Amino acid sequence: MNGAESLVRTLVKGGVDVCFTNPGTSEMHFVAALDRVEGMRCVLGLFEGVVTGAADGYYRMKGTPASTLLHLGPGLANGIANLHNAKKAASGIVNIVGQHATYHIDYNAPLTSDIEGLARPMSAWVRTSPDAKSVARDGAAAIAAAKSSPAQIATLILPADTAWNEADGIAEVPEHSQRPTYSPQAVEAAARVLRSGEPTLLLLSGNALTEHGLALAQRIAGKTGAKVMAQTYNARMARGQGRYWIERIPYVVDAALPILKPFRHIVLVEAMDPVAFFAYPDKPSLLKPEGCEAHRVTEVGENSVAALEALAGALGAKASDAAQQKLVEIAKPTGALTLDNIAQAIAMAIPENGIVIDESITTGRGFFPPTAAAAPHDWLQNLGGSIGFSPPVAVGAAVACPDRKVLCMVGDGSAMYTLQALWTQARENLDVTTVVFANRKYQILRGEFDGVGAGKPGQRAEDMLTLDRPDLDWVALAKGMGVPARNVSTADELNAALAAGLSSGGPNLIAVQM
Amino acid sequence: MNGAESLVRTLVKGGVDVCFTNPGTSEMHFVAALDRVEGMRCVLGLFEGVVTGAADGYYRMKGTPASTLLHLGPGLANGIANLHNAKKAASGIVNIVGQHATYHIDYNAPLTSDIEGLARPMSAWVRTSPDAKSVARDGAAAIAAAKSSPAQIATLILPADTAWNEADGIAEVPEHSQRPTYSPQAVEAAARVLRSGEPTLLLLSGNALTEHGLALAQRIAGKTGAKVMAQTYNARMARGQGRYWIERIPYVVDAALPILKPFRHIVLVEAMDPVAFFAYPDKPSLLKPEGCEAHRVTEVGENSVAALEALAGALGAKASDAAQQKLVEIAKPTGALTLDNIAQAIAMAIPENGIVIDESITTGRGFFPPTAAAAPHDWLQNLGGSIGFSPPVAVGAAVACPDRKVLCMVGDGSAMYTLQALWTQARENLDVTTVVFANRKYQILRGEFDGVGAGKPGQRAEDMLTLDRPDLDWVALAKGMGVPARNVSTADELNAALAAGLSSGGPNLIAVQM
Repeated sequence: MNGAESLVRTLVKGGVDVCFTNPGTSEMHFVAALDRVEGMRCVLGLFEGVVTGAADGYYRMKGTPASTLLHLGPGLANGIANLHNAKKAASGIVNIVGQHATYHIDYNAPLTSDIEGLARPMSAWVRTSPDAKSVARDGAAAIAAAKSSPAQIATLILPADTAWNEADGIAEVPEHSQRPTYSPQAVEAAARVLRSGEPTLLLLSGNALTEHGLALAQRIAGKTGAKVMAQTYNARMARGQGRYWIERIPYVVDAALPILKPFRHIVLVEAMDPVAFFAYPDKPSLLKPEGCEAHRVTEVGENSVAALEALAGALGAKASDAAQQKLVEIAKPTGALTLDNIAQAIAMAIPENGIVIDESITTGRGFFPPTAAAAPHDWLQNLGGSIGFSPPVAVGAAVACPDRKVLCMVGDGSAMYTLQALWTQARENLDVTTVVFANRKYQILRGEFDGVGAGKPGQRAEDMLTLDRPDLDWVALAKGMGVPARNVSTADELNAALAAGLSSGGPNLIAVQM
Repeated sequence: MNGAESLVRTLVKGGVDVCFTNPGTSEMHFVAALDRVEGMRCVLGLFEGVVTGAADGYYRMKGTPASTLLHLGPGLANGIANLHNAKKAASGIVNIVGQHATYHIDYNAPLTSDIEGLARPMSAWVRTSPDAKSVARDGAAAIAAAKSSPAQIATLILPADTAWNEADGIAEVPEHSQRPTYSPQAVEAAARVLRSGEPTLLLLSGNALTEHGLALAQRIAGKTGAKVMAQTYNARMARGQGRYWIERIPYVVDAALPILKPFRHIVLVEAMDPVAFFAYPDKPSLLKPEGCEAHRVTEVGENSVAALEALAGALGAKASDAAQQKLVEIAKPTGALTLDNIAQAIAMAIPENGIVIDESITTGRGFFPPTAAAAPHDWLQNLGGSIGFSPPVAVGAAVACPDRKVLCMVGDGSAMYTLQALWTQARENLDVTTVVFANRKYQILRGEFDGVGAGKPGQRAEDMLTLDRPDLDWVALAKGMGVPARNVSTADELNAALAAGLSSGGPNLIAVQM
């Protein structure tokens, strides 16, 4: 068996049995090995941002890494933006990048570049296999690195001759991670704060946002009177009927500051100390008020559910203490397409056990309250801020969970970065309904322009913030990639399109004309 | 004036008066400055690969750098693949990347990443401006770096507070480059080789491929009997009637080896010593035969035309010595769409003074001989091998030369990486005719699969090499971005579509169904 086959077999044996790929010449032996090795599902993307974003979505829903296969430095480069998002979400990925044969690199052929240099900013682990006999062992080490606590991006660079030369065989994945745990001292310190009666915010992210984690937070809130919120953006959050629903720290600094102002303490469970997404002149970067103390219970990669259990225990918070809450009422909207109507339509449409990928940006700022009353679902967001996140993540989530429906909500500006994901959705017949909010502008930047003190855009600035002249025709774009699509311009049309799309069983796109 | 305005004014004063951009929040002050500063043309791309590729195409046609404006690390990352191609083509670019405000970076906000680390692999010059008063001077230094000999990518990273704080004013561009020159000793050594009568290949690239450089090579060939060829891929080449036409070293190693076998010497004028694009088992990386000596006349950035003039002078090669050559005859093709028919149709259609961007990959391997007899034109190729090169480069070439027609030839696999370029072509009403060769596969990889000794692809491997299921509908994709398009499936339809498209005066797309 050659190096490529030893790697593919090692991946499959190590539980990494999905590969999102956009291969080239230097990766052909890996591709050839797929024919000889059972058990590896290989999914083609026509642009590498689709590949890496899909691996992110896969990890979030499956909790175990997929692999990628990328073509040398430029192929990796095209995937970096979504690797950035994956890194910020602590998604584990075995990121495999082809390289010239070891002896060919010095000749500076056209595709030669500093692959390790490109990989490092987004990878916690980078290794170039030196020879075919090392490939399986390096692959196993990459799996272990990707599965660490916290999970991380492990980039394995595979020179072509290490793929085609004779290898020794399969390698076992070494003991990979310290079992996720937590600090009892940190829990005790948090319990003291929560017992103090001083105004306290319990701020959650990561695994604290599972159904069980949220239920524990609900008990603590009921017992102590602490306010519970989620970080602004979260990798995955259990939501909908039957789950404790909490608001997130708003993105807009002027909206976040008054919400945080009352608190004397912030107890952080996997969450970051709240920080502004961007800096703005004369506004603070750190959002908590002067004198407010942060107390960390768990870091990313620790066991936040166990920590919340211990915290509830220390506080004597029982199920019967759970804070009571009233859900926002939702009703089928009708009439014109207002932001409120869109939010209601989304809340009505979210299917039982659905997966919502949220890159709705400005349009979706009001989606959270009504969707708390939707059918139970998972809600995935972008932690890295690199747009073009959601269509690829939808691919990976749908591959991870073939029995669940995916609702991908995306602004038109964002969708344009990685629209190639639609083709993969069509090829794999993934159950993804994509809703594009077509406002024909980078709407967020119009707010930011003012927010950074740049005043009102004139014509030349305005031209850099708009997607019109020509308008994008999303129905045509989707059709071009084999995805059925329709435009909607009333609430009733949106209701009907969501119902039809989500029951279709395959990919489809709804362009909401705003 | 703030830092952003001081930079925009410095750019305009320094002759950098085009900015290809995809901005975000941290770049809003730069965008705002456009309203206050006359003379900067700003062109929006909806994906950063369009932005950087356009800057590459602009440099190739204009000979002077454009600027870019990219949004932090991920925005830069999306542009890296086409920066790689630009770097390999020695295109100068003032590559401006926004960054968080200096004091905000340490908070690890979502978009924080190692921007300098991402920039370095493709940039010869990287600098982060420390404060608003340094921005103009840093911008001027970036212009000087971009205009060096050889030209290069200069990445200027602009923290948001350096853009919004008060600056000192405009900066002058320092003396930027040693004047391109050449080594008389190297010319003399080459003259000795060419006088020896031993079998010699004169291998050209870069500025040697201007009309004048080629004419000088033609004299030398006639006088000495040396064979003249071009490097496999070249940034820009003067071609068509009235120009000396030369073949390129073939991409396929088995085709290149017998062509190079007869030579005892290779005289390199800006060209690289011929090297295989990829390594293949049991094939050499260096293509020249054993015992063949390479003699370098000029490096990239030297004055190859002056060197060729000196070389012709040393050899006593006069205009009357020019090697005689017969052009391949072209005739309007008819009937089915064969590779030969397509080549003839392209040769017939190339307009006088046209700019041809060639990413035709496997379909175009036979395009060179017939197009030598086309109307005079410039032919641009991809030196970096990162596909998705040509639609963005077409944008930049068209912006650089509004009075010339651009013919962009691209395989369907390649076009999918950067199809967003079509929207910019529509918005700017660029005179670009895009011909997509739709063979519904990564055809080159089918050859490479065999070439690397992987045998014949089975079904699972085959699925990674094909773009079918579903087929891409290029007419719909183009329409979706406001570009009129048509399918053609006969030679006559292709002739008609090329004639109509190239006389339309605006962007259009022809999908050649193969």
